[in-house]
Amino acid sequence: MPESTVHRPLVVSAVDTDRLAVDTLRFLAADMVEAANSGHPGMPMGAAPMAWTLWSRHLRHDPADPGWADRDRFVLSAGHGSALLYGLLHLFGYDLPIAELRRFRQLGSRTPGHPEYGETPGVECTTGPLGQGLAMAVGMALAERMTHARYPELTDHRTYAIVGDGCLMEGVSHEAASLAGQLRLGRLIVLWDDNAITIDGAVDRACGDDQLARFAAYGWHTEAVPDGTDIAAIDAALTRAKDDPRPSFLAVRTVIGHGAPDVAGTAKAHGSPLGADQLARAKELAGWTFPPFTVPEQVAATCAVLAGLGAEDRADWLGRFTEFAAAAPRRADEFARAGARTLPDGLADALSGIVGDAPRATRQSSQACLDALRPILPELVGGSADLAGSTGTAFGPVVRGDDYAPTAIAFGIREFGMAAVLNGISLHGGFRVFGSTFLVFADYLRPALRLSALMGQPVIYVLTHDSIAVGEDGPTHQPVEHLESLRVIPGLQVLRPADDAETALAWELALTRTDGPTALILSRQSLPQHDTHRRAPQPTVTPRPAAADGPGAEDLVPAPRVTATGKPSDAAVVGSPPTADDGAVAVAEPLIGEEHRTVELVATGSEVALAAAVAEKLRADGHLVRVVSVLDRTRYSPDPSACTVSIEAGTTTAWAGVVDLAIGIDEFGHSGPGAEVMAHHGFTVSSVLARIRDHLGSAR
Amino acid sequence: MPESTVHRPLVVSAVDTDRLAVDTLRFLAADMVEAANSGHPGMPMGAAPMAWTLWSRHLRHDPADPGWADRDRFVLSAGHGSALLYGLLHLFGYDLPIAELRRFRQLGSRTPGHPEYGETPGVECTTGPLGQGLAMAVGMALAERMTHARYPELTDHRTYAIVGDGCLMEGVSHEAASLAGQLRLGRLIVLWDDNAITIDGAVDRACGDDQLARFAAYGWHTEAVPDGTDIAAIDAALTRAKDDPRPSFLAVRTVIGHGAPDVAGTAKAHGSPLGADQLARAKELAGWTFPPFTVPEQVAATCAVLAGLGAEDRADWLGRFTEFAAAAPRRADEFARAGARTLPDGLADALSGIVGDAPRATRQSSQACLDALRPILPELVGGSADLAGSTGTAFGPVVRGDDYAPTAIAFGIREFGMAAVLNGISLHGGFRVFGSTFLVFADYLRPALRLSALMGQPVIYVLTHDSIAVGEDGPTHQPVEHLESLRVIPGLQVLRPADDAETALAWELALTRTDGPTALILSRQSLPQHDTHRRAPQPTVTPRPAAADGPGAEDLVPAPRVTATGKPSDAAVVGSPPTADDGAVAVAEPLIGEEHRTVELVATGSEVALAAAVAEKLRADGHLVRVVSVLDRTRYSPDPSACTVSIEAGTTTAWAGVVDLAIGIDEFGHSGPGAEVMAHHGFTVSSVLARIRDHLGSAR
Repeated sequence: MPESTVHRPLVVSAVDTDRLAVDTLRFLAADMVEAANSGHPGMPMGAAPMAWTLWSRHLRHDPADPGWADRDRFVLSAGHGSALLYGLLHLFGYDLPIAELRRFRQLGSRTPGHPEYGETPGVECTTGPLGQGLAMAVGMALAERMTHARYPELTDHRTYAIVGDGCLMEGVSHEAASLAGQLRLGRLIVLWDDNAITIDGAVDRACGDDQLARFAAYGWHTEAVPDGTDIAAIDAALTRAKDDPRPSFLAVRTVIGHGAPDVAGTAKAHGSPLGADQLARAKELAGWTFPPFTVPEQVAATCAVLAGLGAEDRADWLGRFTEFAAAAPRRADEFARAGARTLPDGLADALSGIVGDAPRATRQSSQACLDALRPILPELVGGSADLAGSTGTAFGPVVRGDDYAPTAIAFGIREFGMAAVLNGISLHGGFRVFGSTFLVFADYLRPALRLSALMGQPVIYVLTHDSIAVGEDGPTHQPVEHLESLRVIPGLQVLRPADDAETALAWELALTRTDGPTALILSRQSLPQHDTHRRAPQPTVTPRPAAADGPGAEDLVPAPRVTATGKPSDAAVVGSPPTADDGAVAVAEPLIGEEHRTVELVATGSEVALAAAVAEKLRADGHLVRVVSVLDRTRYSPDPSACTVSIEAGTTTAWAGVVDLAIGIDEFGHSGPGAEVMAHHGFTVSSVLARIRDHLGSAR
Repeated sequence: MPESTVHRPLVVSAVDTDRLAVDTLRFLAADMVEAANSGHPGMPMGAAPMAWTLWSRHLRHDPADPGWADRDRFVLSAGHGSALLYGLLHLFGYDLPIAELRRFRQLGSRTPGHPEYGETPGVECTTGPLGQGLAMAVGMALAERMTHARYPELTDHRTYAIVGDGCLMEGVSHEAASLAGQLRLGRLIVLWDDNAITIDGAVDRACGDDQLARFAAYGWHTEAVPDGTDIAAIDAALTRAKDDPRPSFLAVRTVIGHGAPDVAGTAKAHGSPLGADQLARAKELAGWTFPPFTVPEQVAATCAVLAGLGAEDRADWLGRFTEFAAAAPRRADEFARAGARTLPDGLADALSGIVGDAPRATRQSSQACLDALRPILPELVGGSADLAGSTGTAFGPVVRGDDYAPTAIAFGIREFGMAAVLNGISLHGGFRVFGSTFLVFADYLRPALRLSALMGQPVIYVLTHDSIAVGEDGPTHQPVEHLESLRVIPGLQVLRPADDAETALAWELALTRTDGPTALILSRQSLPQHDTHRRAPQPTVTPRPAAADGPGAEDLVPAPRVTATGKPSDAAVVGSPPTADDGAVAVAEPLIGEEHRTVELVATGSEVALAAAVAEKLRADGHLVRVVSVLDRTRYSPDPSACTVSIEAGTTTAWAGVVDLAIGIDEFGHSGPGAEVMAHHGFTVSSVLARIRDHLGSAR
């Protein structure tokens, strides 16, 4: 957008349009909070000038198409200031009518308490959990450069974020800002709403960071704007930031609750309505005589013109795209395909090609999957929090500040930052993303994983070293509770494959899922291949519904998730091939007829082989035994006619609601060779067998 | 320890003692890793000189008493270098014989893969999860200043930490270092093992931070030591650091795997044994002719002298303590009592005094508990991640860099840092600690909470706004899966009280527990007082054992936890008083005889009142109904003769293993007024009633 935009002769009254627009944003926000009797007026009132300056003079977007690939991204990392964002979206003509502003924070409105991706046109990501907006903005800015490296003809946009003090205190701000500096993301511009106030009071009660020096230490361009109401100064700083090849951090000094006579500059303005009296006095002081929820005509007209310029920008881009598509139809198709998250043909075949005979760790099976995917899925990018080799996610040369063409990203030892950046890349669009670390360190990235699920982003988390079998590294590195702690996150698909074939299937399920994240839970130790997986396809049967009168049966299959997982067939009897077809669960029955079954052993991942060995012994006892490998527990329905036993090297509490006997581990592990640690905690044929025999004996 | 210590004429051969001691540490570590065929030789070989310089010239400790209150603390934040720490502990005479070094990383040894608090004398905290050692060191240094403010006569020690690149990339390093700068923790000295290598390769693949500038931005004293083998330079830098009133950050440039000819300076030296050949060549190059696991006599003699100086220091301190105790016996008793984690008399009475008639949120009940505790439990300190008011944890004036006497700490918007710092304060000793945030942000601090549990530290986590009833702030602020995600952490006591009386009991249980953490799960919204809680005590009965043949019954009570929780009686029938006495569960039966019961409604926290209302309706249907408030689910055993139904505004998967029908929420919430959101997700009398009636109908 030309710099001159707002200096066109739009001003039809003596009142300065900028001043009027800023006050519109301030009072729309305060009116929203007042109407809801809930929310945060202070941030919008203080940050309205910087937001207006950015949106009126710099942000390149077309409100008519919030999904335009080459738009600038705007992230309100200080998500509690949502009323400011909704005001901006309304003013500029996004599909967010004033009626929705009046329904701020009401059930079913498009104006939830914090910005939520997917609920409101123009909201680029869900924010509120502090610091993550900044990190997602880093991801978006990285995605822009990576897209530019692939499609320079189609890519020329920036990412802007407004962050608050809380964002900067959160550790994830360090991880993300450090990565942004390392990767020289010059198209990222961060405005800090430097209002010196947090919920509990003055920032200097808790934080004395020299933020400019800190960001300079990360390799950023930094600048202070001492008066956050000075639109010309903000504008000039933004212009300099755009010209700087480094990511930019602008400290814009503001007053929280600007204009509210009694509470401005205090924590009282942060998170409560101003109250009718205080709001009335603020309006009076500002000379604001309009009724609540008013957009002055002059402001509306200005914004319409600005939106029109954005529409022109998009029209130009569409023209360029048409030329590009004519000149390079295959690349244009690829661009569109990746943008639509459509998978190329041949993916399942490529994945199933990795299946072999030799035992190997599923992390290695997963590495083979990635190797197979690389040539056919160019939009797949990702990396590791410094465990690429260990987690089986080596993916070629890594992206650097002078080369964004590679598909691998060295995230550094920054799990949380990695996950939030992956969210940002995924939200940007055009890529499928994965990131890896040890399962035990899923705790470090959990807040971002939750946002993946809440935003419905198909981020693939590769989490290896998945049990106490990790061994010598000890309990700090041995997951115990982590599988269950992930399974309880709504909308997260958790898959724990047992061998090559299931790992390939897990990758297929992760990739075919486009509306939510997946966690692949993989072993450190070598696992056998379950031969029968590779037999010719067996007949598949429809899964049995859970017995209606079984204890807790109605809760066996968790209540509907926010988003459906991929295709079913994630529970496989050992002896049947896993498939992702037909929506049917592969439960072929190679061993015995269902009518004779007495014991059903259910296991996941590395414990499937243990279950198979135990089954042999039980059969020698005269039991009729089926072994089920459960890639995804939500797909498993127990056989109501059998005694069901789960075997998984993790917490048993939730399994206890699924099966009759849950064998697992509910305490921390120990340092020692993996097999010895497993034995110490009862994961041997003899220990498991003894527990099952006891159970069968007592159940008689 | 006098600076001259190591310059005494201890050197009896031509070989420099320092050089010999450093090589001893290097080769002990390499020998350990080689014997285990597992571990990290590179860090110890590179960092041995700085560790030796610190331990020989600065660290004030007495290996004969690792619990001496006024010892200096040493934290190996780069916990994968455990072999270096074990070597130091062995050399200086801690109870860690060479036989234990030979059993490095073996099951049951005192030399686990990563340092584990409680497993090895002299190990101050569990490290390995990167960054947390640094943050715990900040907590220890803060505890030292807070102890000094209370007992200046008894307190004069420092905290040292060695951190690696990974620690500095982790976000928690930002949170902790920023807080340390803010609080001017001048007695904290951090040595950075600046070896420019991480697991995946060169640091500069992923990180270009100017770490000195970054720490200076936090208000730290910083200095670079360009040659990490230069003991005199390290010594001088440590001396300057001790003289500086700010916390100090020393960047000590090292070579990972120093001395191993083929792998030194590369990632290959990080996490694998050197191999027999490489180790032999390293020893040859160093002129090291001793057999594996040798401590040269000259080194042993030097360390014995140094340990003797530490013993003298402690003897001096004990003398001062005796004088102090004579002059101020009451204060000496308090010092000893707090150090022993013994509670003062009157605690239960003080807590039960907060019980009132008026409805209030349990976060407010909890604030009343804290107010009641403050006068009688002076060692209780804590604070909030900037939500002191919202979470009911306002606790008086806050600690500042010029005043460490207050009991409240403003942690800033740094949940993870808060939890890790609390671990550090708790490990330091002399304090009981709490920290607060919203329950949904327990995700942010989860890695440190896990370490609280693993280390058996009685950190109290006050987690409020505990369900979708949070309302308008929306799904980013509404916990759903969090209760279960906490319940699966081994050794964490999770308590969700329903009213004043249970909140008081929860605080009592949290405080009487001295060997593990507690999470108090508290409501945002107002809750009624369950009158009968305050009746005269009812007869208590022993809890029924879980039915042996019920489906999954043997798993109803989770397998033994690492540490036992506090006294039982955490499940209370509505209508009985909660007590913490006698090890008996309070299950008085005011309503109906057990033989007639048909429905048992189990609820926690805010859902107890809902359950009570539903019970009334079910009784009108002709059912005999008991309502059980379950403060701690691990203490609840379902009535095998009744149809059991749980009602909790959280994930149902684990409840499904406990009761017949689990009513909860397994999807994300929505933004809207709390009561509307609850109703939308089925938490109304009519919705719950309909589900139970359906269930009872289908179960017939």
